[in-house]
Amino acid sequence: MADTVNATTHGTCRRWLASGEESPLFPIPPMTLTTLETPVPLVDLDRMERNLDRLAGYTRAHGLALRPHVKTHKSPIIAAAQLQRGAAGVTCATTREAEVMSAVCDDILVAYPPVGEGRLRRLMALASRVRLTVALDSAAAAEALAAAASAAGRRVGVYVEADLGMRRVGLGTPAEIVALARLVASHSSLELAGLTFYPGHIRESVDKQAVALAELRRALDEVIAALTAAGLPPRVVSGGSTPTMMSTHQLPAVTEFRPGTYVFNDRTTAELGACDWDDCALTVLATVVSTAVPGQAVIDAGTKALGREPLRANAGDGFGVLLSHRDVYVRAMSEEHGMLELGSTSWKPRVGEQVRVIPNHVCIVVHLNDVVHGIRGDRVETSWPVEARGR
Amino acid sequence: MADTVNATTHGTCRRWLASGEESPLFPIPPMTLTTLETPVPLVDLDRMERNLDRLAGYTRAHGLALRPHVKTHKSPIIAAAQLQRGAAGVTCATTREAEVMSAVCDDILVAYPPVGEGRLRRLMALASRVRLTVALDSAAAAEALAAAASAAGRRVGVYVEADLGMRRVGLGTPAEIVALARLVASHSSLELAGLTFYPGHIRESVDKQAVALAELRRALDEVIAALTAAGLPPRVVSGGSTPTMMSTHQLPAVTEFRPGTYVFNDRTTAELGACDWDDCALTVLATVVSTAVPGQAVIDAGTKALGREPLRANAGDGFGVLLSHRDVYVRAMSEEHGMLELGSTSWKPRVGEQVRVIPNHVCIVVHLNDVVHGIRGDRVETSWPVEARGR
Repeated sequence: MADTVNATTHGTCRRWLASGEESPLFPIPPMTLTTLETPVPLVDLDRMERNLDRLAGYTRAHGLALRPHVKTHKSPIIAAAQLQRGAAGVTCATTREAEVMSAVCDDILVAYPPVGEGRLRRLMALASRVRLTVALDSAAAAEALAAAASAAGRRVGVYVEADLGMRRVGLGTPAEIVALARLVASHSSLELAGLTFYPGHIRESVDKQAVALAELRRALDEVIAALTAAGLPPRVVSGGSTPTMMSTHQLPAVTEFRPGTYVFNDRTTAELGACDWDDCALTVLATVVSTAVPGQAVIDAGTKALGREPLRANAGDGFGVLLSHRDVYVRAMSEEHGMLELGSTSWKPRVGEQVRVIPNHVCIVVHLNDVVHGIRGDRVETSWPVEARGR
Repeated sequence: MADTVNATTHGTCRRWLASGEESPLFPIPPMTLTTLETPVPLVDLDRMERNLDRLAGYTRAHGLALRPHVKTHKSPIIAAAQLQRGAAGVTCATTREAEVMSAVCDDILVAYPPVGEGRLRRLMALASRVRLTVALDSAAAAEALAAAASAAGRRVGVYVEADLGMRRVGLGTPAEIVALARLVASHSSLELAGLTFYPGHIRESVDKQAVALAELRRALDEVIAALTAAGLPPRVVSGGSTPTMMSTHQLPAVTEFRPGTYVFNDRTTAELGACDWDDCALTVLATVVSTAVPGQAVIDAGTKALGREPLRANAGDGFGVLLSHRDVYVRAMSEEHGMLELGSTSWKPRVGEQVRVIPNHVCIVVHLNDVVHGIRGDRVETSWPVEARGR
């Protein structure tokens, strides 16, 4: 990472995050939650900083390179806070994320196949100081990338993607992975930089992950042995997810860790036991707009503010729970309506009352909104745009 | 509607929509689909114009006032095209929609409880030429609105909202509806403008709607009889939805119709039989980025481009179907990945190939994107921002 690039931004963000002052980047007049228009996402800055510190400490303790995925926050301000805590670089999914993050980071992994003319053109146009690595799983993607990199006069790192059970992207057999690694190594405009996988299929609660992790370890070791036998041992092995975040060291081959959700956490993370409820940093502030239908209350956060994401844990209905009443959940939604289930609570919501919802899946909430407010207690301290939203 | 306000915009939009010229508002260099970056929403302009014409003709034929819901398109350009075809005004859900639409329309219904200080402040700040009507279902909302309207020196129309089976917002008994109508009528800053309901619970296919519509008609007539007996007969009865769009005249009491989805339609509308597949005007253009996992192909449209909306019709899996291969559907999604189910097709997708997805629920797709491209055939003719997205 070029110190000249990151020093200023890091300094700014460090000062802001540490001091509790209003952000010098996005100062706003002091206000309380009750003056905010709803629905709007809030980030509890104390909780976020604790989440960032905790995982940075874990990766340091286990000698893992931390390359957080920015898809969760889509903000260069938060990325800078991650880099300031020792992240080696960032992970992006979209071209826009890579472009926005290049303002604060010059070591970027695009963990997404660089397929399509527009995607390649924009990636090759990233500032030349950016060390760019991409993940891919096909000869077609590798050949097109090699040609684009060559034409742009840059050398692009490549992680070959293995499917270790997620069944999304990635090659399934050691032979296929070795063949693609060979193809990558044969191009002078590419650098075979490592092996990557995503264990997003491991959704067991933390206390039941052992079997799944043992299977993952076996499959990963088999791929690494095949690459090593072919004379192409991976320099980097990049893996990990938020649900397995504190178990990543149980896969000794992994050298780099790419969690996303941990910065804010969400109802799924808490239900899986991968964080405490008090570690859920992002909530959606909403207002009760109707109590006309008996047995429910309607808030102004629906699908267009919360997303229709199921709880990706063992059990649980609905689309989010209230921060202050965890026995109340969002049972159903329309585009701008969230129907709160009141069957298990003695709370009697009033029209006009504000509530805060812990969403099932926080990455979608951020993507649905343009602005996030940072709070401490009931005081709105700062505000930042979701700058890498959009395309 | 003030002619001076709408004439220019209507003229512009009429010329653009009718002539097939590039939009004078958002000219873009000529391009073909293959040069577009994906994922991106496309609107087939011929299909959209046919959808707009068809429903305008239906409402004219049945003497219904048409007040289309802009939540589906969130664009003043499309709203202007609806007004140019005879719409009496527009329906909005959010404050931002009302603000954006006030540039092209001065008769706006906010079909959403105007609860919360910020919401009221911004609604009262709409240009004074705008005839504003809001729907509400509580005394608390009515009292706060009356005070805000009085302070702003404006008179605001109110539709009292009835719940006729949807169980979302709306009062459930004639007695409650009469009591709220009386309260509204007692405030000089409010005008009791009518009765509203939303039959969004009627999701039967068009050929099986008769029973549900008969029940709706009975419930509606009962409410109107109670209001009439109380000396408060509703001047406007506002109802209707896209799935029931061509059956609205079977509710003779309804005077105003507020469909949204009909402008683009979607997989749900087609599966219900409320439109033909050829009436689906909006698709998401996507690129195949991986075929590494056997039996599937992965496209770059996932939850963040398509939304995780279920098919809201009788049967059907997945989150969308391909325009050119309706036997292929999006079986599963991650944030930026859509997994195509290939079990019923002989089509062999290649990495880099483009596809077009008809989404389950088009309103969410529009909300997830910032820009929409208008096409005729394979030619990209124009482009417009989703201007009323956001808050």
